[in-house]
Amino acid sequence: MQLNLDRIRNHALRNRIVEPEEAATWISDGMTLGLSGFTRAGDVKAIPAALVKRAEKENFKVNIYTGASMGPDVDKYLTEAGIINKRLPFQAEPVMRKQINQGNMYFTDQHLSQTSEWVRSDVLPSIDYAILEAVSITEDGVIIPSTSVGNSQIFAEKAESIIIEINLAQPEWLEGLHDIYDPGQQGSRKPIPLVHPEDRIGEIGIKVDLDKIKGIVFSNKLDSASTIVPPDEETIIMANHLLTFLREEIKAGRLTEQLAPLQSGIGTVANAVFHGFLDSEFNDLVVYSEVLQDAVFDLMDAGKIKFASGCSITLSEKAMENLLTNFERYVDKLILRPQEISNHPELIRRMGLISINTALEIDIYGNVNSTHVCGTNMMNGIGGSGDFARNARYGIFVTKSIAKDGKISSIVPFVSHVDHTEHDVDVVVTEQGYADLRGLAPRERVGVIIENCAHPMYRKQLWEYYTEALTRGGQTPHLLEKAFSWHTNYQTKGTMLMEEKELAEVEG
Amino acid sequence: MQLNLDRIRNHALRNRIVEPEEAATWISDGMTLGLSGFTRAGDVKAIPAALVKRAEKENFKVNIYTGASMGPDVDKYLTEAGIINKRLPFQAEPVMRKQINQGNMYFTDQHLSQTSEWVRSDVLPSIDYAILEAVSITEDGVIIPSTSVGNSQIFAEKAESIIIEINLAQPEWLEGLHDIYDPGQQGSRKPIPLVHPEDRIGEIGIKVDLDKIKGIVFSNKLDSASTIVPPDEETIIMANHLLTFLREEIKAGRLTEQLAPLQSGIGTVANAVFHGFLDSEFNDLVVYSEVLQDAVFDLMDAGKIKFASGCSITLSEKAMENLLTNFERYVDKLILRPQEISNHPELIRRMGLISINTALEIDIYGNVNSTHVCGTNMMNGIGGSGDFARNARYGIFVTKSIAKDGKISSIVPFVSHVDHTEHDVDVVVTEQGYADLRGLAPRERVGVIIENCAHPMYRKQLWEYYTEALTRGGQTPHLLEKAFSWHTNYQTKGTMLMEEKELAEVEG
Repeated sequence: MQLNLDRIRNHALRNRIVEPEEAATWISDGMTLGLSGFTRAGDVKAIPAALVKRAEKENFKVNIYTGASMGPDVDKYLTEAGIINKRLPFQAEPVMRKQINQGNMYFTDQHLSQTSEWVRSDVLPSIDYAILEAVSITEDGVIIPSTSVGNSQIFAEKAESIIIEINLAQPEWLEGLHDIYDPGQQGSRKPIPLVHPEDRIGEIGIKVDLDKIKGIVFSNKLDSASTIVPPDEETIIMANHLLTFLREEIKAGRLTEQLAPLQSGIGTVANAVFHGFLDSEFNDLVVYSEVLQDAVFDLMDAGKIKFASGCSITLSEKAMENLLTNFERYVDKLILRPQEISNHPELIRRMGLISINTALEIDIYGNVNSTHVCGTNMMNGIGGSGDFARNARYGIFVTKSIAKDGKISSIVPFVSHVDHTEHDVDVVVTEQGYADLRGLAPRERVGVIIENCAHPMYRKQLWEYYTEALTRGGQTPHLLEKAFSWHTNYQTKGTMLMEEKELAEVEG
Repeated sequence: MQLNLDRIRNHALRNRIVEPEEAATWISDGMTLGLSGFTRAGDVKAIPAALVKRAEKENFKVNIYTGASMGPDVDKYLTEAGIINKRLPFQAEPVMRKQINQGNMYFTDQHLSQTSEWVRSDVLPSIDYAILEAVSITEDGVIIPSTSVGNSQIFAEKAESIIIEINLAQPEWLEGLHDIYDPGQQGSRKPIPLVHPEDRIGEIGIKVDLDKIKGIVFSNKLDSASTIVPPDEETIIMANHLLTFLREEIKAGRLTEQLAPLQSGIGTVANAVFHGFLDSEFNDLVVYSEVLQDAVFDLMDAGKIKFASGCSITLSEKAMENLLTNFERYVDKLILRPQEISNHPELIRRMGLISINTALEIDIYGNVNSTHVCGTNMMNGIGGSGDFARNARYGIFVTKSIAKDGKISSIVPFVSHVDHTEHDVDVVVTEQGYADLRGLAPRERVGVIIENCAHPMYRKQLWEYYTEALTRGGQTPHLLEKAFSWHTNYQTKGTMLMEEKELAEVEG
C-alpha cells in the first residue's frame, strides 16, 4: 500500500492507517455498509477488493447502501463473490442485474434524493461502517470527498464507525469543489438557502466525529471509466427535436435565451441529447444535475455551459484525462453536492429546471417506464428521474422510438411498469419528433404521441388499439385483456409487430 | 340580489356592482374561466347559475379551471348544461364523471400543487375571467376569500379580468384566517419561509390590480355540504391499525408523542381514519393538510388537535352549523392557504408530514391506483395525494380490502392504473392490518401486503398469481398475460373471485 501522509493533515489521525485487508476483517456477516460513490465516481476501491478476497475463504453477506450505481470494483466483483444481501438505491451493472432478476439478492429501487431521509430517520437497518473515498483529510479532520458526494455525509453521520479510503489517484485540486450541506431532521429544518445553481451554502467537506474513524487505508486507482457511447445519427436528431421545442418555448415567451438550469440523466441517450447544444445558438447555460458526464465538459469548452452543479463527475477515459490535465479551465465552474441537495424537490421546483431523462417505454397516454423490461426484469433503477421529472418546470423524457431493429416499439398501449405517471411527463422526444403533453387530457395526448413520437411501422397498430379501446369509453380508454399483448407477443414471438392477418382480426 | 355595501370597504369599487345575469353575458364561447373553490368550499355560486340559465337559450362552451372539486352549482349544473369543454385539475361529481368517461368533455387530472405553475408560466390557455367568491373587499381593495383559497390568487393575477362574488352567507369572521403567499416565478424564487404549520408568511387576502375588477355581484348561499359519511365498523378498525403503526414508530424512537404534522385526503375513508385519533392517547397534534373536514373540528373539540393549516374547510351541514355558531372556539387555530402552499413539495418534505390518502386499489408490489376504475373510468382524480405521498415522511394509503361485497379485491396482482409508484408508498392500511413497506424490495413486499392487508377470501388467489409469476423471475415477477385477469374477470363475470376450478387450472 502506497502512502502519502500529506493527505492526512490532521496528525492525530495518522496512526489509524491500516492495510485494506485488515479493515476488511472488521466487517462481519449481516452488517450494513454505507459506501461513497455515485454513478461510478468516487467509489471506494481497496476495501471492496479486500472483501472479495476474504469471500474466497469465508461465507458472509452484507447490505450495501451507496449513492447510486458503482463501478465494477463494487457492483460487479462483490456480486460475483456472492456477498450482497441487499443493495440500494440504484445500480447499472449487468452481473448484478442478473442476480437481482434471478432473485439471488434484494434490490430496493429508490428516488435518489430519498435514501438519506430513510437513513437519517432510522427507517433502514442501521449502518455499521461508512466506507468513504476521500482526496484528503484537513487539519480539522474534515473529510474531502473525491469525484462524487453521493450519500457520504449522512452515512458518516449515522454509521457506527467510519473507514476512509484516501485515493492518491484522485487529484488534490478536488478540494474546494464540494459544497456539503446537511438539511437536518425533518420537522426542525430550515429552508435550504440555495436559489441559484452557483450558490455555495455548506462546508468544503464532511465533518465527522473523529472518534468514529476506525481506520484509514490508501488506494491509488482512477474511477472506472463511463460506459456511455458517443452520439449517433438518431440521438442527434432527437437533440434537434429538443432544441426545436425549446425555441418554440422562447417564441411563446415562456423561456428566455438563457433557458433554465438544465438537468440530464445518466446514460448514453441523455448525454447525447445534451451534446446537441454544441451546435446550437445557446450560450452561457447553467446545469443543475446529478451526474456531470462528458457532454457537460465539451459544452464548457464550447462556451455553451458556464457553470455546472452536480453530485458526481462520471467521464469516459479520454474526458477524464482532459479534466485531470486541464483542471484549471473547469475548477471554478463546478460544484459537487450531496445527492439529497442535487436532487432535492425543494430546489428543483424553486429553480424550475429543464429536466431530461431517459425512458425505456412510454404509453399512448404518457406514462413512462424507466426501469423494468417487460414489467418484470430490472434494468437499472429509477435513479433521480422521479426527483427531477415531478418537480422540474419541464419534465422531458427521451427514447428512441424502436429497439432491437424494430422488434420492440418504445411507444406501447400500456407501459408494463410505471415509474412516472401521466401527471409528471410534460414532453416526450424520440427521433420521430416531440410531443408536448402539457395541459392535455389523456384522449388528447394519444394522437400527439402516436403521430409525433411513435415509429411509422407501429403507428397503425397503435391506432388500432386506441380505436377499439374507444368503444369502451373512459377517461383513459383501455382494453385490459389486450393492454400487454404487445409485450407478450414480444415474449412469445420475438416481436411486438403484429402481422397484417392479426391486425385484420383485431379490426374484425 | 341582496346587497351589503359594508362588505365592499373600498368605496371606488362600489360602482362595479352588477347583477349576476349581466356578468354572465360577458362570458363568451371558447373562453377560459378560473373559479374559486376547493372541495366544495368557497365555490362561486351566482354566476354559474346565471351561465346555466343563459345556456338554455344559447350554445357556448368554456374551459373551467378551479382549485379542486366543486359543489353541484358548478360541476353538476354546468355539466348538465353542456357548457364545459375542458375541466381541470380535479372533480368528484357523478354527473361530470359520466360525461368525462363518455368522452363528452375533457378532464386534465393534475397534482393540485401544480396547476398554479402552469397558469403562472402561461402553459395553459390563458384565463379570460377569474371569478372569485369573497367575504369582503378591504379598504385597499384586497379580496378576502371565503372558506377556501384554492388557486384564486394565481387566477386573479393572470386573468384578463376579474369578477367578484361577495357571498353574504359566508361569515365576516373569516377575514384574518387566510395567509396568501405568492412564491413568484420559478427561477427567481426565494425559499418559502414556512417552517411550522402555524407560521404566517403572507397577506390576509388577495391583492389585485383593481382596474381588472370588471364586476362585483352578491350571493347568499352556504357551501354545498360535504358528502362524507360517518365512520363505520371497518374504518374504525383501519384507524386502530394506523394508530398501532404510529405507536410502533414511537417505540422504535422514530417519532415522539407529538407525532408530526398530519395530512388527510378528501373523502369518507381518510376522514374516518382521522376520526380514530379521538379515542387515542395523542393530544395537541398539528394538521398541515389541504382540506379540513369534520374530523379536524371534532378533534379540536376533544383537545386532540391544537392547530390546523389547510386550503379549504369542507363540512357536513351539522359541522358547518357548529362552526358558524362557535367560531370563536376555532378561529385562532386555523389558517387557510393557497393550494400551491398547502400542497407544496418544499414544505411537505421540510416538515416531514404524516400523510394519509385513499387508494382505489393497491397491487402486491405496493403500486397504488387512486383514480381509474378498471384502468379506464375516472373516479375523481389524483388530487393532492401525489404532492403529499411523494414528499411526506410517511406516505400512507388506506382502503378497505374488498368492495362490492367481495366481488372486488382492492389488493390485486397489478393495478390497472398507476398514480403512486412503489417508490412513494410507505405504508398500506386496510381493515385487515397494515403493511410497512419501507426499505423492502418488491419480492419482500408481496407477503407483507397479502398477509397483512388482503382480504382472506383473496389471499390464496394472490399467492397463486405470485407463485406462478416467480417461475418467470425478475425484480418484480409478473405474468403479463394474466396481470389484468382479475379486472377482466370482474368485467365479464361480475367478480374478481375465481372458482376453485379456475384456480386449479392456474395451479395445473
